[in-house]
Amino acid sequence: MSTYHDRLTALREELARRRLDGFVVPLTDEHMSEYVGAYAQRLAWLTGFQGSAGSAVVMPAEAAIFVDGRYTLQVRDQVSADDWSYQSVPETSISEWLSARAEQGARIGYDPWLHTKGWVVAARAALAAKGAELVAVDTNPVDAVWPDQPLPSDAKLVVQPDEFTGKNSAAKRSEIADWLAGRNADAAVLSALDSLAWTFNVRGQDVERTPVALAFALVQADGTADLFVAEEKLGEDVRAHLGNTVRVHPREAFAGHLSTLAGKRIAADPERAVAAIFEALEKAGATVIEARDPVVLPKAIKNAVEVAGHKAAQHRDGAALVRFLHWLSIEAPKGGETEISAQDRLRAFREETGQLRDLSFDTISGAGPNGAIVHYRVSEQSNRPLELNSLYLVDSGGQYRDGTTDVTRTVAIGVPTAEMKDRFTRVLKGHIALATAIFPAGTRGQQLDTLARQYLWQAGLDYAHGTGHGVGSFLSVHEGPQRIAPVGSSQAGGDEPLQPGMILSNEPGYYKTGAYGIRIENLILVEERQVAGAEKRVLGFETLTLAPIDRNLIDTGMLSGAERAWVDAYHARVRSEVGPLVPDDTRIWLESVTEPL
Amino acid sequence: MSTYHDRLTALREELARRRLDGFVVPLTDEHMSEYVGAYAQRLAWLTGFQGSAGSAVVMPAEAAIFVDGRYTLQVRDQVSADDWSYQSVPETSISEWLSARAEQGARIGYDPWLHTKGWVVAARAALAAKGAELVAVDTNPVDAVWPDQPLPSDAKLVVQPDEFTGKNSAAKRSEIADWLAGRNADAAVLSALDSLAWTFNVRGQDVERTPVALAFALVQADGTADLFVAEEKLGEDVRAHLGNTVRVHPREAFAGHLSTLAGKRIAADPERAVAAIFEALEKAGATVIEARDPVVLPKAIKNAVEVAGHKAAQHRDGAALVRFLHWLSIEAPKGGETEISAQDRLRAFREETGQLRDLSFDTISGAGPNGAIVHYRVSEQSNRPLELNSLYLVDSGGQYRDGTTDVTRTVAIGVPTAEMKDRFTRVLKGHIALATAIFPAGTRGQQLDTLARQYLWQAGLDYAHGTGHGVGSFLSVHEGPQRIAPVGSSQAGGDEPLQPGMILSNEPGYYKTGAYGIRIENLILVEERQVAGAEKRVLGFETLTLAPIDRNLIDTGMLSGAERAWVDAYHARVRSEVGPLVPDDTRIWLESVTEPL
Repeated sequence: MSTYHDRLTALREELARRRLDGFVVPLTDEHMSEYVGAYAQRLAWLTGFQGSAGSAVVMPAEAAIFVDGRYTLQVRDQVSADDWSYQSVPETSISEWLSARAEQGARIGYDPWLHTKGWVVAARAALAAKGAELVAVDTNPVDAVWPDQPLPSDAKLVVQPDEFTGKNSAAKRSEIADWLAGRNADAAVLSALDSLAWTFNVRGQDVERTPVALAFALVQADGTADLFVAEEKLGEDVRAHLGNTVRVHPREAFAGHLSTLAGKRIAADPERAVAAIFEALEKAGATVIEARDPVVLPKAIKNAVEVAGHKAAQHRDGAALVRFLHWLSIEAPKGGETEISAQDRLRAFREETGQLRDLSFDTISGAGPNGAIVHYRVSEQSNRPLELNSLYLVDSGGQYRDGTTDVTRTVAIGVPTAEMKDRFTRVLKGHIALATAIFPAGTRGQQLDTLARQYLWQAGLDYAHGTGHGVGSFLSVHEGPQRIAPVGSSQAGGDEPLQPGMILSNEPGYYKTGAYGIRIENLILVEERQVAGAEKRVLGFETLTLAPIDRNLIDTGMLSGAERAWVDAYHARVRSEVGPLVPDDTRIWLESVTEPL
Repeated sequence: MSTYHDRLTALREELARRRLDGFVVPLTDEHMSEYVGAYAQRLAWLTGFQGSAGSAVVMPAEAAIFVDGRYTLQVRDQVSADDWSYQSVPETSISEWLSARAEQGARIGYDPWLHTKGWVVAARAALAAKGAELVAVDTNPVDAVWPDQPLPSDAKLVVQPDEFTGKNSAAKRSEIADWLAGRNADAAVLSALDSLAWTFNVRGQDVERTPVALAFALVQADGTADLFVAEEKLGEDVRAHLGNTVRVHPREAFAGHLSTLAGKRIAADPERAVAAIFEALEKAGATVIEARDPVVLPKAIKNAVEVAGHKAAQHRDGAALVRFLHWLSIEAPKGGETEISAQDRLRAFREETGQLRDLSFDTISGAGPNGAIVHYRVSEQSNRPLELNSLYLVDSGGQYRDGTTDVTRTVAIGVPTAEMKDRFTRVLKGHIALATAIFPAGTRGQQLDTLARQYLWQAGLDYAHGTGHGVGSFLSVHEGPQRIAPVGSSQAGGDEPLQPGMILSNEPGYYKTGAYGIRIENLILVEERQVAGAEKRVLGFETLTLAPIDRNLIDTGMLSGAERAWVDAYHARVRSEVGPLVPDDTRIWLESVTEPL
């Protein structure tokens, strides 16, 4: 197996053959996915970086990897400083970095199937200012030097039945048709994999952790659709489910099909459809209507069936997590357990539900200082024992047919320090402030973010990540458009008005590098609130996740009466809703750890 | 005197003579000022609207006036619905409204000395989409039909001495020169009147309430300057103060001077310099460097001398306000006082300090339902008596040579209702949450706004204005760039990082249309905070305004222990710092109304 240094050298040689003076390697696929199939893991193959967001730029004498604040530590562990410089976004943009280095006449390559049009326009302008050129490649040069690159998955699609979706595909496509009629458009491009899965009520197995299938589609103004997907992945059940209003084509035929759309008015989302799609439509002579993917909002606003399914998944998942926490409370103090043995045990409890389809993301199982690595993923090399008198942070979730979960608990093994309790309690107070927020309709996540940070700020502390992301229904664990994050965050969505039916995470944290990490994460549902005398439509959150919060880490003297009451009421809910689903010994333990403060 | 209907008719006839199908009348001057001299009060003359922000558009068959949420009620009182339709910004933009109505080939006029370049570009594009044209006028058609339009003021400039500014003009211009060197620029256009006053350490009397003088300037890369100002307004003292490194030219010579700058690199601020300035520079063949006015930040970040001056002004102003509140507590319950008599009495107390140069804005003296009109200005017609068992809201401020004040107090005359106390206490809790906020350096006002609204939101209530604006030093009472306002506000500045030395208002409120208004406003100073164990540079606020908050309106049962302690500590400060400055009977009253809760 080649070294990362060899791979970089091979790519540089390939770039030289193609007369390119640089190349950009993003972590995405032809669908602008966050999590991508093995065939598209070019960034990881080239650099060793295992995080879920980042980009690399390779030039003849320099190479840089760009990550955000979540991966500041991780990138230094995984990517060699001998070959790569570390760059932080949003402080440094790829365009700025490139244009500071590109020389007059330089040719910088990019793969138009892996970037948005907006990125291409901005990067091209930045390079043009230096007399350099941004050049689209026909085939990706990383693929040319990756001898054992996997093929795209050939896993079968499965039907997601109406009992989980609450709305059939024809009805969903009819709503897209109404949306098209409002814009006098002939068709909409769907290229985001979660939008495709939601629209056609199918799920796939092409991407780890996210049940989507590689495909493209055009939904037509008459509610019919053209679906571009490897035909061998469709069984009889899926073909029958799609019916005769969905015309199936090979996935490779998509680009060619776009070239036949001369004179048509085609809606495409510049945030979600890649630059190559816009280029193909424009070249074909179609009129492109830039608009947000019409599926994004209805997918985010869960209907009653999806909410009910999600709650069923939370009960099941909560019971598995409670069994794990009980196990942990017995085994961890004895010694001998590790980050890997713990995450395996947690997975086993989820699998014992008989309904786990996959984890919803790679478990973050962080003991002691590894808990401070925000998106840590344990390896054999990094694996730490769970030690007495330390903190253990576990961020995990499951994919079930009725819902996607995501939960973080931080547990004291042995006796926590006063500082740990202070920090944990500040994080908890922020978590409660967000969980109990009441706000007018139209409020954006950006307006709520500070509620979760305020008690850390009072001590001159903070966390370098957002407070909440959207979550799909048996789909992506990170699924917008909504987000709770500060103004100026590198991640989009903080300006999206929150609407009833949206699910978000509530996950403030605190991280002391080299020492410990703390995060308390529940999923929350935006809901209407009836407030006597209200002059506006008012919204609030229902907490969905059900698992005890470690009382040993709470400094009760720092809580207000209302905050204590929130913890006690939450724990009473956990006890009554999850208690009946766990074995007797676990239920007895659960009752003790959910006693009122 | 002509009626507003006559004036509109006259303007329409003038537009027809000029073959214009519409004309835009903003409330500003050639300096993009918020408060403008009488000669530039075209919007008020045309429509009767007395608010401080708005625009009108006149077309042959339709006319509309555009105001933001602060003026929703006021515009309906002051502007005739027979002639005008009321439009809300930001919900409806002038460009959208115009382009929805303009016909193919229509010519819509604008005065390029009264709009930003950005506005012109956007409006031109919106009209072009309808085949209509935006046409710059050489002279303003409102002026042509305004027979008794006042001339621009000929009031003398005065020197603002170093004892108040803390830095002489040569030093300030030297810093601008450094800034120009960093951009390889030859000169900077200064056209904002507060920037001019600050840079040259002069004040004027050309605009009511704001001590500025009508002028333009070019600050050169060598630290010298060309100042364009009516020469008869400069006395010997000001000429001596300006010295021989400031070349004085007539104000009318500015446009002509711009046309001589071929080949020069000139910095101009697209938010503050009007479109006509950019057009003149481009026509002349100068290279325009678009950049924020280099004076904006140093002017906002008060130095130690400016802070000390501001605090002296606050003591003096607080004593005047305390005397007024004492007087009010005696006279109002007797009956016979009115909004006008009260505001006159308040002004008299400020004048008795012997140091009042002007009010810092027109006092908002709102009794009962008039308190719910956010930017109410009393007239003989609207004047209400101060009645028993009602609320009285007074928002006022003074211009002193050492500082500009702005304070709102809401007072119960007689016995307030439980609802009034509930609302007042929610506003107070928000005020305290902002006053006591601690936050990392780099935090924007947008991130703090929710702290002030949260307790109103819990009851389904809110206020339709920002929470805080910047304040100048013996300059504008609304002076950015900093602001505390929600994301998406129509007013700019919420995204400006707060820095130590910035002064802002803290003014949450609640308004019940037709019943009463509540606002609690203090000025606050951003300051460094030393927090033990802090991992970041931490900022907080020092409250500057000193006047009692009506204890009769506080429902103490709704306050936390920390909130009660804040009120008590604040009142103790008012008592100890202002008490010695007021007559004995007032001091005795002050001691009683500042007793601990």
